[in-house]
Amino acid sequence: MTDVQENTAVQPFAADGKNDMPSPPQAEEGAYPLSEAFERGHVFSDRCPSRQVLNHITSRWGVLVLLGLVDGTYRFAELRRKINGVSEKMLSQTLQTLEADGFVLRMSYPVVPPHVEYSLTPLGREAAEKVRDLADWLEVNLGRVLEAQQQMQGARSQR
Amino acid sequence: MTDVQENTAVQPFAADGKNDMPSPPQAEEGAYPLSEAFERGHVFSDRCPSRQVLNHITSRWGVLVLLGLVDGTYRFAELRRKINGVSEKMLSQTLQTLEADGFVLRMSYPVVPPHVEYSLTPLGREAAEKVRDLADWLEVNLGRVLEAQQQMQGARSQR
Repeated sequence: MTDVQENTAVQPFAADGKNDMPSPPQAEEGAYPLSEAFERGHVFSDRCPSRQVLNHITSRWGVLVLLGLVDGTYRFAELRRKINGVSEKMLSQTLQTLEADGFVLRMSYPVVPPHVEYSLTPLGREAAEKVRDLADWLEVNLGRVLEAQQQMQGARSQR
Repeated sequence: MTDVQENTAVQPFAADGKNDMPSPPQAEEGAYPLSEAFERGHVFSDRCPSRQVLNHITSRWGVLVLLGLVDGTYRFAELRRKINGVSEKMLSQTLQTLEADGFVLRMSYPVVPPHVEYSLTPLGREAAEKVRDLADWLEVNLGRVLEAQQQMQGARSQR
């Protein structure tokens, strides 16, 4: 902050340099030390931005898109076939949300016909691996869950 | 199955014994080997019951209820205070869904005033630990996500 204030004395309107000369996204990494501002998120607080990101990752289709991309790069139609039951609209929305969070990389190649590919960023891969651990646990233990559901139904019908 | 078929010859209408004489829930555990019928779920299939259970676990409030109960037993009002922003109605619905899946145990003590406590079952604890791994990752890495979001916003505004 000291350096910025010294510069302000000389060039008052270029102090933050953001409005008149946006730098390329890559260069902004050092300029916004958000990783320092948010030392750790708190999902129990509805004012913490981690709550919203958690909702994106664990949304109905967000979970399946992350899982779907965990093993490679897909075109839209391929991914839609992989994830049974997702509509074009919801897959498109979900991919956009995860792209905006920095989890999904959208590569558009300037060819005819247009060729667009989706994959996970390194950040997205880390998140996807946690989601995969959860889905793996569920797939392996589904029988136990279904048995528990039956027992609960039986117990309720006897009340 | 051999035993059942031998009985069928003697008592043809009691062959499955389910319609006329429901057994108590505890006794059904051996009768429905669902853990064998579903050797492994497949969340990508919209016809697999794992898809629905995954939606319960990863629902907006399902995630936070599992996380909230991971460290112990709570009364309704305590849990609601812990999970910022959840309405009574949504907390109640979410607890019921997770109870029906066998993840949450609801203990009601016959005292005046009524005393009801919620905790995780062993099955729920396993699921909650996977959810906690995901939430932990997000809380620790929130700064990286927020930086990625800013970079994406910057990139979009330049398009």
